[in-house]
Amino acid sequence: MTVESKKHGIVIVGYGGMGSYHAKLVKDNQSLEIIGTYDILEERRNASVADGYKAYESFEQVLNDPAVGTIIIATPNDIHKEIAVNAFRAGKHVICEKPVTLSVADFEVMVSEAKAAGKTLMVHQNRRWDEDFLIIKRMYNERTIGDLFRLESRVHGANGIPGDWRHMKEFGGGMLLDWGVHLLDQVLYMVDSKITSLTGRLSFIMGNEVDDGFEATLEFENGVSALIEVGTTNFITLPRWYVKGTEGTAIIEDWSLKGKSVCRNNDVEKIEPTPIRAGAGLTKTMAPPSEKATITKELPEPLQNASSFFDNFAAVIHGEAEPIVKNDEVLRVLNLIEAIFESAEKGETLHNFDIYSA
Amino acid sequence: MTVESKKHGIVIVGYGGMGSYHAKLVKDNQSLEIIGTYDILEERRNASVADGYKAYESFEQVLNDPAVGTIIIATPNDIHKEIAVNAFRAGKHVICEKPVTLSVADFEVMVSEAKAAGKTLMVHQNRRWDEDFLIIKRMYNERTIGDLFRLESRVHGANGIPGDWRHMKEFGGGMLLDWGVHLLDQVLYMVDSKITSLTGRLSFIMGNEVDDGFEATLEFENGVSALIEVGTTNFITLPRWYVKGTEGTAIIEDWSLKGKSVCRNNDVEKIEPTPIRAGAGLTKTMAPPSEKATITKELPEPLQNASSFFDNFAAVIHGEAEPIVKNDEVLRVLNLIEAIFESAEKGETLHNFDIYSA
Repeated sequence: MTVESKKHGIVIVGYGGMGSYHAKLVKDNQSLEIIGTYDILEERRNASVADGYKAYESFEQVLNDPAVGTIIIATPNDIHKEIAVNAFRAGKHVICEKPVTLSVADFEVMVSEAKAAGKTLMVHQNRRWDEDFLIIKRMYNERTIGDLFRLESRVHGANGIPGDWRHMKEFGGGMLLDWGVHLLDQVLYMVDSKITSLTGRLSFIMGNEVDDGFEATLEFENGVSALIEVGTTNFITLPRWYVKGTEGTAIIEDWSLKGKSVCRNNDVEKIEPTPIRAGAGLTKTMAPPSEKATITKELPEPLQNASSFFDNFAAVIHGEAEPIVKNDEVLRVLNLIEAIFESAEKGETLHNFDIYSA
Repeated sequence: MTVESKKHGIVIVGYGGMGSYHAKLVKDNQSLEIIGTYDILEERRNASVADGYKAYESFEQVLNDPAVGTIIIATPNDIHKEIAVNAFRAGKHVICEKPVTLSVADFEVMVSEAKAAGKTLMVHQNRRWDEDFLIIKRMYNERTIGDLFRLESRVHGANGIPGDWRHMKEFGGGMLLDWGVHLLDQVLYMVDSKITSLTGRLSFIMGNEVDDGFEATLEFENGVSALIEVGTTNFITLPRWYVKGTEGTAIIEDWSLKGKSVCRNNDVEKIEPTPIRAGAGLTKTMAPPSEKATITKELPEPLQNASSFFDNFAAVIHGEAEPIVKNDEVLRVLNLIEAIFESAEKGETLHNFDIYSA
């Protein structure tokens, strides 16, 4: 018996962009192994074989193979639930791409099927491992610039929605379900407080049937407010993160993690600013602080999650760890997404919708 | 009779920062002349004399002086109305600093008193002459980057609220009434459409009794949306203007007018972007457009208003021009400000509040 044969066997269902990315992520894992893939397209089955992964001929063949311990679902969003339910009933664990389903109700079915089968369901909220996010999370936890009371998380592109199922409603397209689910998950993972107010707004600039961007303003019971924004018609990008604390402000420009914090210099006595000419008027309020009145610093190192997604998954199925991505958290984010759709459609601010347990 | 004696005589009431700024603005005017000032503080009366302007000993003395044709009101906001009403009853025109009053009802009193006296009331919404604004107004009018459908207008400072009457509610302090009245006026002066939706939020970070900043999201009937934001706890500033058009995006960084527009290059066939690694994941949607896919341009020159504020005022009192700052427009902005206070207090999105006539 070789060492490899002890690894837990995984099959990827849906071998597109994310499916093949999963194969790379699992490649070096000590205890997990991709043993094959399944895709409805011949082209993608050929790509799988070319990449060195057996292409199953049918989904039934995957379900019936006792070597398969886990199924990774990386298909369009609308069929996640059906595949997962079949996987659980065949005794497999499931790792599912985000958004896990298009509704809270569908996710509840998945969770209850996993429970009935005694199997693990983990959603691939991989952006909890993004270093930009983990820098902000450290600042939030460690009060690097005082208490963070304002979080602005933006992702801007200019490509519109890529031209496949992601721009069709029936497949669960649109930016709120695509990027939104990540950015909302990050903020709820960071801020441990109930959402008391939500205003959502979707944009339909490109004339698609799904949103090509959105903004959501959240207020939390602990006083934090967050603006979460995704745009695909932004030829100039605003910073990935812009956050305000009681002692200063911090910015992360983009994925390169370029950024800084600027804080009040408490060693210098506060000096009333001198009015400056600004446009056709004067302003004292908006005059820049004097040179010595602030301190500019580098950003802290990113926090580290306890382990990688796949190491955590392996530990969870062996009963050795709690999942880092918990299904209660996923449910809460889906519920928030439904509330954003509702707020945008009604043009109303919503309260009392959040499912939060302290 | 000298040429100077033909000039229209103006007295500035309230000789603080803005009062003395008015004196400078009028100095070179061909037909207007500052003939004196009145301030309740001896220190400011002395400053006036030092600057070469007679200091009246009482407000009554100003009202009774037949040489005074116009009174400029540059006092704290809460006493604008009382001074203006007395001025009209004494047969004077009035130029009033912004915010003209703290409520729609008070402004309506001022307008009706002006009308009864047959005198002119013009509010000094001087930021209609800001070059940054006039660049954006040209882009809006001339569709420089296609139809502008998204306007983000921000003013960020880190000084809190300057430490005088501006941080007290009874004097009409707070940032919504101070900077807000300018930024809202600019957007309503530019976008000729009814506001159909408003969500307002005030911040009270500094623990003052008035807002130290706010955000207002407006949606207009013509499809334009606007975010207007003022912050005084922002140690890093976001751009003064960030606007999106159907062909591209434009930015103005700050008062220096540094900025650019980036537009779609319609001469290049649209190429599906290649996914990039971003954080712990892949993204095709947020991949930067290829080098040839966009065109970067300088911003256009600012539009020009028909004349300066004071030239326009002189023409208005001589019956030769319509006011650039119309009282109906000022009323609409005050009404919007009241709606923002209401929206923020209730935590609700408001509709059907705008007073707009096409």
